[in-house]
Amino acid sequence: MRNLKCTVAYDGTNYHGFQRQPKQSHVATVQGKIEDAISKLIKQEIDIVGASRTDADVHAKGQVFNCQIDSSIPTEKFALALNTKLPDDIVILKTIEVDSEFHARYHNQGKRYFYQIYHDYFMSPFWRNHAYHVYRPLDLEAMKEAAQYLIGKHDFSSFRAKGCNAKTPIRTILELSIEKEDELITINVHGDGFLYKMVRTMVGTLIQVGLGKLKPEQMEDILAAKDREVAGPNAPGYGLFLEEIYY
Amino acid sequence: MRNLKCTVAYDGTNYHGFQRQPKQSHVATVQGKIEDAISKLIKQEIDIVGASRTDADVHAKGQVFNCQIDSSIPTEKFALALNTKLPDDIVILKTIEVDSEFHARYHNQGKRYFYQIYHDYFMSPFWRNHAYHVYRPLDLEAMKEAAQYLIGKHDFSSFRAKGCNAKTPIRTILELSIEKEDELITINVHGDGFLYKMVRTMVGTLIQVGLGKLKPEQMEDILAAKDREVAGPNAPGYGLFLEEIYY
Repeated sequence: MRNLKCTVAYDGTNYHGFQRQPKQSHVATVQGKIEDAISKLIKQEIDIVGASRTDADVHAKGQVFNCQIDSSIPTEKFALALNTKLPDDIVILKTIEVDSEFHARYHNQGKRYFYQIYHDYFMSPFWRNHAYHVYRPLDLEAMKEAAQYLIGKHDFSSFRAKGCNAKTPIRTILELSIEKEDELITINVHGDGFLYKMVRTMVGTLIQVGLGKLKPEQMEDILAAKDREVAGPNAPGYGLFLEEIYY
Repeated sequence: MRNLKCTVAYDGTNYHGFQRQPKQSHVATVQGKIEDAISKLIKQEIDIVGASRTDADVHAKGQVFNCQIDSSIPTEKFALALNTKLPDDIVILKTIEVDSEFHARYHNQGKRYFYQIYHDYFMSPFWRNHAYHVYRPLDLEAMKEAAQYLIGKHDFSSFRAKGCNAKTPIRTILELSIEKEDELITINVHGDGFLYKMVRTMVGTLIQVGLGKLKPEQMEDILAAKDREVAGPNAPGYGLFLEEIYY
């Protein structure tokens, strides 16, 4: 029996998130597709453990899962073999053998996400499933200023959606940067962990600042309020990418 | 009656090319979708004239068409109004009024395409419909050297697919450049005109050079042969983008 740590990229457009739903629901999830593929490959029903429960439409360039497998397929051939059983919107990038105690969710030390905004009068057909369209003027400098207030260790209760099971709302944001190239604005976020929908609420609130509906310094009040009602709306899932998970 | 010149971007993934098919065929084409949208908008059945007949799966960032319309919608509002009737993979970017004699196909002076190759061991799920996956080593310098032989005025019979209606196989390539950024190789082509599937045959032949199956200097022999059999295979349509049409 080997414990395998796998890195997987997926286009979330056609899935109801990463996490498997009950089989009766017939809803396609990334986890469900991967478990089906492993079952076809090694003729065993196994459960995989994902590091992050990405929501519907959210994408990943570096999601991580682990699984205990009993198979003659060498570890270094596992990704190649598994990809032949997967649809082309889910790709296993890398597989390594890890200690039997390794747990993708419990043992991660931090995560990196990025969020894409397409900023032009008309939306591009090429970004329609991978960036959020904003056509009104955005004050990028104000957004960058606002982002500074979120960096560091804070109580992020105002950025925590209902249904969040985390024991504490304290999180540390190590990086929150905003860049623009042509029509594409990318917001990069690196933190030690994230509450439910926290990145999307942060992005939605930063957009309110960009639109002039909030002032950068109001981020301090929003954090202090510890109330989800005072932050901005969630930016839609399809602009969000899980980039990397750190161990 | 106004003659409108419209610039349109589309993701070709879900279409059998630009050109309308007979209505009985029930095949979705970009032209068919645009004509349906215009008909919904102005309650008239009109024919549009596309500059280029892109093949199935081929994309466009700057296809051009013109149409004669009789409508009270101001020219500067036409793109916005038409986009509300179009699916989100077809976007009218710009509309201007032109001389009644203007014809999008007959009057263009040249076209610019680019072709994307995703070069890594595994394909990225994000490029699966927009770049051709090559995992074997590619000698980019050899490809660049080979490209030089195609620049200029030549008889491109060796790069002309069956079914081509062009009167002459003589075309002038003004630019043919190859660049790489991370895993993405982009081949840029600007010419005064192109024969049927010419860009895809050029790209397929350059890939053969990159793989070491052809030497750069053999491009000269391939041109001289004036025989489609001696060039490489066509690269698939989904890696090709019509970038701009010049008037």
